[in-house]
Amino acid sequence: MLSNLIEEILHPDSIAVVGATQARGWGGGGFVESLIELNFKGKIYPVNPKYSEIMGLKAFPSLRDIEGTIDYVISSVPATAVPGMLNDAAEKGVKTVHLFTARFSETGRPEAIELEQKILELARGYGIRLIGPNCMGIYYPLGGMAFHADFPKQSGMAGLSSQSGMLSRELILTSAQRGIYFSKVFSYGNAVDLNECDFLEYLAQDPETRLIMLYVEGVKDGRRFFKTLKQAASVKPVIVLKGGLAQAGARATASHTASLAGSQQIWKAAVAQAGAVWADSFEELIDLAASFYFLPPAGGRRVGVIGGTGGTSVLAADRCEQAGLEVIPLPAEFREELKNRGVSVWDWLSNPVDLSIREDDSFSAGLILEMMAKDPNFDLLITLSGIRERPAAGPGATPEESLRQQYRLDACRNKPLLIVVPENSAGIKDWDGRGAKMNAEMRTALINLKVPFYPTVSRAAVAASKFADYYRRLESNR
Amino acid sequence: MLSNLIEEILHPDSIAVVGATQARGWGGGGFVESLIELNFKGKIYPVNPKYSEIMGLKAFPSLRDIEGTIDYVISSVPATAVPGMLNDAAEKGVKTVHLFTARFSETGRPEAIELEQKILELARGYGIRLIGPNCMGIYYPLGGMAFHADFPKQSGMAGLSSQSGMLSRELILTSAQRGIYFSKVFSYGNAVDLNECDFLEYLAQDPETRLIMLYVEGVKDGRRFFKTLKQAASVKPVIVLKGGLAQAGARATASHTASLAGSQQIWKAAVAQAGAVWADSFEELIDLAASFYFLPPAGGRRVGVIGGTGGTSVLAADRCEQAGLEVIPLPAEFREELKNRGVSVWDWLSNPVDLSIREDDSFSAGLILEMMAKDPNFDLLITLSGIRERPAAGPGATPEESLRQQYRLDACRNKPLLIVVPENSAGIKDWDGRGAKMNAEMRTALINLKVPFYPTVSRAAVAASKFADYYRRLESNR
Repeated sequence: MLSNLIEEILHPDSIAVVGATQARGWGGGGFVESLIELNFKGKIYPVNPKYSEIMGLKAFPSLRDIEGTIDYVISSVPATAVPGMLNDAAEKGVKTVHLFTARFSETGRPEAIELEQKILELARGYGIRLIGPNCMGIYYPLGGMAFHADFPKQSGMAGLSSQSGMLSRELILTSAQRGIYFSKVFSYGNAVDLNECDFLEYLAQDPETRLIMLYVEGVKDGRRFFKTLKQAASVKPVIVLKGGLAQAGARATASHTASLAGSQQIWKAAVAQAGAVWADSFEELIDLAASFYFLPPAGGRRVGVIGGTGGTSVLAADRCEQAGLEVIPLPAEFREELKNRGVSVWDWLSNPVDLSIREDDSFSAGLILEMMAKDPNFDLLITLSGIRERPAAGPGATPEESLRQQYRLDACRNKPLLIVVPENSAGIKDWDGRGAKMNAEMRTALINLKVPFYPTVSRAAVAASKFADYYRRLESNR
Repeated sequence: MLSNLIEEILHPDSIAVVGATQARGWGGGGFVESLIELNFKGKIYPVNPKYSEIMGLKAFPSLRDIEGTIDYVISSVPATAVPGMLNDAAEKGVKTVHLFTARFSETGRPEAIELEQKILELARGYGIRLIGPNCMGIYYPLGGMAFHADFPKQSGMAGLSSQSGMLSRELILTSAQRGIYFSKVFSYGNAVDLNECDFLEYLAQDPETRLIMLYVEGVKDGRRFFKTLKQAASVKPVIVLKGGLAQAGARATASHTASLAGSQQIWKAAVAQAGAVWADSFEELIDLAASFYFLPPAGGRRVGVIGGTGGTSVLAADRCEQAGLEVIPLPAEFREELKNRGVSVWDWLSNPVDLSIREDDSFSAGLILEMMAKDPNFDLLITLSGIRERPAAGPGATPEESLRQQYRLDACRNKPLLIVVPENSAGIKDWDGRGAKMNAEMRTALINLKVPFYPTVSRAAVAASKFADYYRRLESNR
């Protein structure tokens, strides 16, 4: 029932931005700019008595002055102006109001808390549903809705529900750098009316969403939340990042979205019990999303690690085992095959595979990857891309073609393959150098090839381990 | 005594590279190239019967054909040719031989282990000291010695002793991206003669070295190692990264540098007891080095966190507390000062300081940083640089000047200040965009300003916590 409501909210024929300005990038003007830039197909009504036109669109003094119907309102007026705006919206038959407007209960100030409550009651009386206050609202690229004009127009299969608006911005932009695009994003802030459960429920049922990312600071109704989470996790992977775990974090959530935070142990246990995946940090949320976005299911936790030199291989093995993966020794039949193929170091090679001990052309990263992909003893593969190493490519080959050949990617499609592409804190002189730019080229090519990459082996190992855990739990629940 | 020996090894009047080739970048040719490139002031003798000239230098058929004295030999000949080369070296009165030559005990092959032993006995008989085998040897920028031609010519105050050669290369290049430069680096591989203790002892006494980084896979003599480590840690910070902690890691160390690895618990405890700093990964070693390289001592673990938006502030607080820092509430007198300065959100502001709640120009990141730097309640400061946010700068100001103003860096020199500059996995199209390039510009400027930066708040928090721990232990041992 509610999910139909949100589906409807996502498809307004007209959007009014109250408190629109001429300023791009942020606030009322930023919303108008975003709708234009993302090519929203319905009507856009900027509302502000100060202007007759905003970004080429006719502007209206108030909602009441708009002639047509209005489905959806974005409010960028000051908090004290919201009740008046709601009266106008009710008169125009508006169904949903997104309150970008902030300075309510998150300030901790009694008069602001009272105003928030009054607004909720007013909206309830009018039958208007609220998103927010104190949030960025909806990003739905296929529907042309966004809250920043620099968001990707490209749609994808990840859904995000985030209590924090600016964090959802960071998640959207950082995810795109990793090739992860979104079906729908909801930023819901103080969540006085529509809340985390409503959006999660919607994303769970949404056929355009294959993977759910959640950022939660606090929940209104713990029982409903964990029931909804369990239901969602039973149909698609759900990754949860919880803010406000520590004492100061909890203090900060109060002043950010006026939420009660709850303890880390309880949360972690409940998320695991619901069958969802726990992310320990912002980076881990992105790493896990990249894994679920691109990889085929993992059959276990036995990993083959390829491509380091001596010391990096040793450290890669350490990080994998610390993350909970099994870095198994090379199976006897694998070694036998190396010998049969004429690999001179067949007796010395180990897992992780130290490529620097190669003494001739009898083996390559690609050969080992292909052999491991075919060998049922390996469940996952992690490759360290040579730091500052040029991918082998024929003359004129695209980076994609060159990577496909180098790692024999076509042979590795049946197993999760994670590639480590280091970041190395580029400085300004790297902009003219080769190394950092080559890694950037490699990242873009990997996205095109639908292979996820990770900045360090530590992060790849943790993501791989939690990814494998998810499928093990799924299997054992069958 | 031994340290004088290494000081002497570091100042040869002449170096012969046996097995030199015309090929730059790697192997014998790479060593010749590096000595030329780093401007080694003594004589360089390439040795290879195949060539009469290498890179503009006269080449010699064998060591015996060189007329002058030879202090230091770099061996790039095959393993089986090493005994003959040692005979020649002895005849010429060579004092030290660096065996880049590999394929000895690390292969696990009996004949190779035997050959390694034979070479050691031969060298002992001749009074020749050996570095290696299976290692990259010495990088000493002030002395013009290096093992890769792309190493920085700039000298610095970090010393590194690394069992792994290629890892030392990664450490040198990645450190430079963070502004960390080296006094001396020793890569010692299988360490049949000179070993980890000799180099550590030297670095502890070396006035050019103010901070020691160690990468160790295994040690020859545990008792001597921990005694040396304790001695070194009593005079300067020593950061230890141990390879081969996990089962597979230990297996990999055997095939990498033929070392026995030892268990993680024992190592961690022993390193802490010696007063050294334990690094959990490659990244952490670099992060810790950046902290000790640039920061003034920390008086405690109470941290002020500035500069995030809502959600990132919440998560920053979580990561800081999880790392063991105390994110204290804003002290009453601090809040009072905010009020007196006319900061409208004086009652709402919290630690971490959410900059996005600013409603006017009554406060800035710089003001808060300055106030926290002056306030004895804060021991450390962490600033999140606005992701994709342009530093405020006057027209025509350099990035350095602009950052100095924005963060009031001159007022913050008395307290450790760590800045988070995100990396965000740049793709190739970012090379033409603004965001990633601006961050690169910021990193270079921060290095020039001697302020360390970290790619994530998680990593900054862990580094800050271990950094503060070091000074707490130092204090309690007084």
